[in-house]
Amino acid sequence: MRKLRYGMVGGGRDAFIGVVHRKAMALDGGYELVAGALSSNPEKAKLSGEDLGLSPNRNYGSWQQMLESELALPIDQRIDVVSIVTPNHVHFPVAKAFAEAGFHVVCDKPLVHTSSEAEELIRIVEKTGAVFAVTYNYTGYPMVKHARHMVRSGQLGDIRKIIVEYNQGWLATKLEESGQKQADWRTDPARSGAAGCIGDIGSHAENLVATVTGLELDSICADLTTFVEGRQLDDDGNLLMRFVGGAKGVMIASQIQIGGENDIRLRVFGTKGGIEWHQENPNYIVHNSLDAPRQILTRGSDYLCAAAKKATRIPAGHPEAFLEAFANVYIGAAEAIHAKLEQRVLTELEGDYPTVIDGARGIKFIETTVKSAASSQKWTAF
Amino acid sequence: MRKLRYGMVGGGRDAFIGVVHRKAMALDGGYELVAGALSSNPEKAKLSGEDLGLSPNRNYGSWQQMLESELALPIDQRIDVVSIVTPNHVHFPVAKAFAEAGFHVVCDKPLVHTSSEAEELIRIVEKTGAVFAVTYNYTGYPMVKHARHMVRSGQLGDIRKIIVEYNQGWLATKLEESGQKQADWRTDPARSGAAGCIGDIGSHAENLVATVTGLELDSICADLTTFVEGRQLDDDGNLLMRFVGGAKGVMIASQIQIGGENDIRLRVFGTKGGIEWHQENPNYIVHNSLDAPRQILTRGSDYLCAAAKKATRIPAGHPEAFLEAFANVYIGAAEAIHAKLEQRVLTELEGDYPTVIDGARGIKFIETTVKSAASSQKWTAF
Amino acid sequence: MRKLRYGMVGGGRDAFIGVVHRKAMALDGGYELVAGALSSNPEKAKLSGEDLGLSPNRNYGSWQQMLESELALPIDQRIDVVSIVTPNHVHFPVAKAFAEAGFHVVCDKPLVHTSSEAEELIRIVEKTGAVFAVTYNYTGYPMVKHARHMVRSGQLGDIRKIIVEYNQGWLATKLEESGQKQADWRTDPARSGAAGCIGDIGSHAENLVATVTGLELDSICADLTTFVEGRQLDDDGNLLMRFVGGAKGVMIASQIQIGGENDIRLRVFGTKGGIEWHQENPNYIVHNSLDAPRQILTRGSDYLCAAAKKATRIPAGHPEAFLEAFANVYIGAAEAIHAKLEQRVLTELEGDYPTVIDGARGIKFIETTVKSAASSQKWTAF
Amino acid sequence: MRKLRYGMVGGGRDAFIGVVHRKAMALDGGYELVAGALSSNPEKAKLSGEDLGLSPNRNYGSWQQMLESELALPIDQRIDVVSIVTPNHVHFPVAKAFAEAGFHVVCDKPLVHTSSEAEELIRIVEKTGAVFAVTYNYTGYPMVKHARHMVRSGQLGDIRKIIVEYNQGWLATKLEESGQKQADWRTDPARSGAAGCIGDIGSHAENLVATVTGLELDSICADLTTFVEGRQLDDDGNLLMRFVGGAKGVMIASQIQIGGENDIRLRVFGTKGGIEWHQENPNYIVHNSLDAPRQILTRGSDYLCAAAKKATRIPAGHPEAFLEAFANVYIGAAEAIHAKLEQRVLTELEGDYPTVIDGARGIKFIETTVKSAASSQKWTAF
Repeated sequence: MRKLRYGMVGGGRDAFIGVVHRKAMALDGGYELVAGALSSNPEKAKLSGEDLGLSPNRNYGSWQQMLESELALPIDQRIDVVSIVTPNHVHFPVAKAFAEAGFHVVCDKPLVHTSSEAEELIRIVEKTGAVFAVTYNYTGYPMVKHARHMVRSGQLGDIRKIIVEYNQGWLATKLEESGQKQADWRTDPARSGAAGCIGDIGSHAENLVATVTGLELDSICADLTTFVEGRQLDDDGNLLMRFVGGAKGVMIASQIQIGGENDIRLRVFGTKGGIEWHQENPNYIVHNSLDAPRQILTRGSDYLCAAAKKATRIPAGHPEAFLEAFANVYIGAAEAIHAKLEQRVLTELEGDYPTVIDGARGIKFIETTVKSAASSQKWTAF
Repeated sequence: MRKLRYGMVGGGRDAFIGVVHRKAMALDGGYELVAGALSSNPEKAKLSGEDLGLSPNRNYGSWQQMLESELALPIDQRIDVVSIVTPNHVHFPVAKAFAEAGFHVVCDKPLVHTSSEAEELIRIVEKTGAVFAVTYNYTGYPMVKHARHMVRSGQLGDIRKIIVEYNQGWLATKLEESGQKQADWRTDPARSGAAGCIGDIGSHAENLVATVTGLELDSICADLTTFVEGRQLDDDGNLLMRFVGGAKGVMIASQIQIGGENDIRLRVFGTKGGIEWHQENPNYIVHNSLDAPRQILTRGSDYLCAAAKKATRIPAGHPEAFLEAFANVYIGAAEAIHAKLEQRVLTELEGDYPTVIDGARGIKFIETTVKSAASSQKWTAF
Repeated sequence: MRKLRYGMVGGGRDAFIGVVHRKAMALDGGYELVAGALSSNPEKAKLSGEDLGLSPNRNYGSWQQMLESELALPIDQRIDVVSIVTPNHVHFPVAKAFAEAGFHVVCDKPLVHTSSEAEELIRIVEKTGAVFAVTYNYTGYPMVKHARHMVRSGQLGDIRKIIVEYNQGWLATKLEESGQKQADWRTDPARSGAAGCIGDIGSHAENLVATVTGLELDSICADLTTFVEGRQLDDDGNLLMRFVGGAKGVMIASQIQIGGENDIRLRVFGTKGGIEWHQENPNYIVHNSLDAPRQILTRGSDYLCAAAKKATRIPAGHPEAFLEAFANVYIGAAEAIHAKLEQRVLTELEGDYPTVIDGARGIKFIETTVKSAASSQKWTAF
Repeated sequence: MRKLRYGMVGGGRDAFIGVVHRKAMALDGGYELVAGALSSNPEKAKLSGEDLGLSPNRNYGSWQQMLESELALPIDQRIDVVSIVTPNHVHFPVAKAFAEAGFHVVCDKPLVHTSSEAEELIRIVEKTGAVFAVTYNYTGYPMVKHARHMVRSGQLGDIRKIIVEYNQGWLATKLEESGQKQADWRTDPARSGAAGCIGDIGSHAENLVATVTGLELDSICADLTTFVEGRQLDDDGNLLMRFVGGAKGVMIASQIQIGGENDIRLRVFGTKGGIEWHQENPNYIVHNSLDAPRQILTRGSDYLCAAAKKATRIPAGHPEAFLEAFANVYIGAAEAIHAKLEQRVLTELEGDYPTVIDGARGIKFIETTVKSAASSQKWTAF
């Protein structure tokens, strides 16, 4: 299977997430970087491309240039897929333009700023048939895939309750004043969107819940807070959730809980059992059942589901972590792209990645949460 | 210091919590059992008293008899204190009668069924000067006392956020139908009160938060659920909380989260740091600070506060647990009773126990939560 | 069942372990303190006895006096049992004298200084029929009893390997120079015996292994070290062990591993599975099997063995700890004493406590270890 | 910096470690695979090379062919480095031949079968100046680098004691009979070498200790066991160790401890503190000091040493794991190779990887351990 040719938008010098995407793509040898518009600043874009060894004629000063020039290339040289790793406000124009031009797209989350933008992307993708992945990377973990399997196959019985947390503390002080780039744009509504903490990490938590349980949100009751004085967006959010069918939920997301590093965790309880998973030690699931001893399931074990096994590279006890999970999203997208190229349908275990539909639902989640936070009514419909 | 003479109401054969109280009182040698009305069933009461070696003339068939007979004894033989360990609905009449008669009282939680009952008890105690302890036992843990010290002395800065959980799974099925006595009365509104899960364990969580932080609740937004069909009271509750001064909170309490044994935990975050404590491994506090490595504080260490040290019997690494914490409540009450007997004021570290005031606030918490759960408004004032 | 009358030798003001014994005896109401010779210093003995409310005529200045006076009392007033909680060198004369006089004995560990002393105690006990318990308290934990059950009932298959650790750091500096009483006598060969670390805590580790596995030591290969300059006894010891039948073992015991509080742990591996238990969080066993997920067994659960359940006072999740385990040794001894008093045999679950035989084997372990440490041969026969 | 061209020997279809090496090299973009002799079976070698997209003319049927053909290429097309990932017995001839021909070498561990082979490799490397890395991958973890820094910079004081464990259970049954390839050759002395467990994983443990502490072994006392009947090599080993300067050590290594996955852990204790690190959750160090609370150090934190920071790709809380650590060894080797190509010396933080010297010491460790196991003397000099 040939390597997919990708172009990257964003991810230049000083960026955080671009390098993660590149390493994730490099890990399994499925992609090669052939083009880039690595910064909104043309000069920085070029320097960044040089760092990465881009050939000068495909080291672009802007994504518009990249789009135009790539389209001018013969189809067997042209990029297959664009990877969009810019601050949030740039996602929409880039994704729209490349998708409309028929390229496959991998875009960071949250997808866009508004549901109407998200729906527009869905319409485009439906028309062009492009693969469109959104890097909700936490669902790439093998043990998350197994959690999904446990829930979906009824091992926990009917789902009653979901507790999801995303505990961080890095914005407990006004870090954005220090010039730290990540803090700067993530706390700026113009670049980050309508929500801060809930947009940046609450959206990951929403996706984790939806992926594992398949439950649909019915309504949300949110309390969002900006604890750090002078900050414009929320840096903490607590939600009660109701799901269609009667399950209840709690989401705790925060950027001011000192000591929280990147502590996304999930608990799901049903009529027959409960499970727990922690991202910071991600190779395990704690499984509790009625009247049986607690179990610790470990990545790499024979008793795991096929999707978890497929997402595993090395044996139990040799921990896999963040980058490997991220890479699993890209593997799923690559499978889907190859299937398109080969004009065939995906096999059962192929193409396991979050799509533009997940991305759109995430935007609706952010919007509903912000709306609920402003409401004196307890429940805001999803 | 002489042993305090106590009489017990409730706690006969098949009871759960009575034996805990008796062991807690026995542990440190401060109390001796001299009288009892150990069941509402006179025959069972007598048999239970025989089991415990009560002398026949003080092995009473009812608490009314016990009250009358003890009052008839000379003051230096009479019980000093009554320990009330009955199902909830019996707390009020017994506590009222003994307190009015001038006895000191230790009563299990939740204190009574209504705030007006609680206020009546406060008025009586104010008049008689009796010691009135409520056995919110989790605040007896040394590391909870140190958590209180850390918050109150400003080590965490201004408090921003509190997360309290009480995770249980024992009522995930309809256990009350099996004849299990604990499940039977705890799910019965007539005996348990207006709330199930929130009354039984949510009230402990509320007390833990209030004790450690000293913050006053401003308003509550509650979602209570009865997951097990046919059950009359809530078996799950999730709350958003707002505190006077701006701190936010989340409470998760459940009796249907399979795998939860008696998992009460607390996290408190301020502008300078955060702490975490778990009851199931209670000898530790996790302490996070801005820009310093995470610390694990251990019971028995030199660096702990005086109250934590006083509440500690044995060195670090020799774990102390539930019964010892329970006994610490009784030690605090005993100190207060002795001070009354000696007509002196308590020294600084003496008398560290939850009082009728804490008990009353707990009832108000239950009432407000139930009211909020029935409301379509987001916030119900506390 | 009447309370047993006990007299205590040692355990006066400033002692550590005496108060543990008294609380352990108080917890379950099976014993009452009626006599004491609480210090080798007669004046201190008397003051200590006053603290504890001993009646003046049974508050003795020496154990010899106590023995003589108690023997002079009518048998129904006389102490039933003596509890010996002195520094090690006093164990033998006191135990011998009381045992010969027909009293039941509970003695702290290590039992005595030499195997010949230990054998003499065995002979006496065989003659008088007295109950003689040695407070190897860690075997009192319910989950240790269940570990024993798992091994003895074949759940782990044939035992291949045992790893036992007792990690402490409190003697990492020359604490004995500070006047700290515990450090003072424990590092003094005249009072502590031929070994330091191995005598004080290695002996606990030996007993834990023997209790859980029932395996007999075949030979030992020891490396003992005195890391703190000027100290006379070992403060660290590492052992390879061979057991009759082919199992292998490792013991790590130390008083200089900074950060070790009272970290005694056990791992046992057989042909079918392995288990792990940690004293500092003692309510759990980790159980691994061939081809099945890891299990966490929790104290208080229905699936545990009868002996573990009998040793449990309160439900799962309400942690029990050091004092409760200690008290379980005293419960076992009390059952044996009552059976003697009633001239009946013990029922199957009664009398579960370490005896003088365990104590003697512990001394042989210390002697063999010290001998091995001095030898250039790899293996020293046990 | 251009990508290094590498050729791989071994690592074809069904191999375990070859794919790990390839992913580790791919992750950071420093290497590209251009040639291979991927199996000792020429046909399988070719098929494996096709899987990996090798060009037919550099997809070799044997390493001898590869050596000859690569040497015939112009220097700017020729491979820079050979990566040897065969079973152990093939390491020596391949490494020798390529090193003698002036290629840089990365070789899996244990390096070779005998110390004389190891010394021969050292002599060759000294002559040619080639870079020769041995993939003791566990020392690539950032927190292992920080542990090394803590010890070497004196934060723990003088080192007294080291406990290293490598707990596995995968060979608890006679897996080699099932045809499992890894079990097959690892239990065969002809292919694995003189030791089984000690060679395969004990050698990793030795390297971890040497890397972190810099201490030299003085003597070893080993007890090796073959628990599984009919197996030819040890599957369990326990060692007492003495280090030059007086520190003591214990090594526990096993392939029959059921439940052990890949549980390599290290504890180091000095006069001022102690540390603990576990490979299965590798982003943390537990640090204990005299009289200060226990600390948990986390990867990605500002307070870590420069080498740990350099070895870190993503922020704290986004766990990095096995592959990333493996890749760090390859980064260090690449830096050294580039420095050679550029004829410059390494900067202070460059070139941090285990060398042929480490590999040779590992072989001496295996030989000494096997010798000690056969000896009735306690100590065998290293």
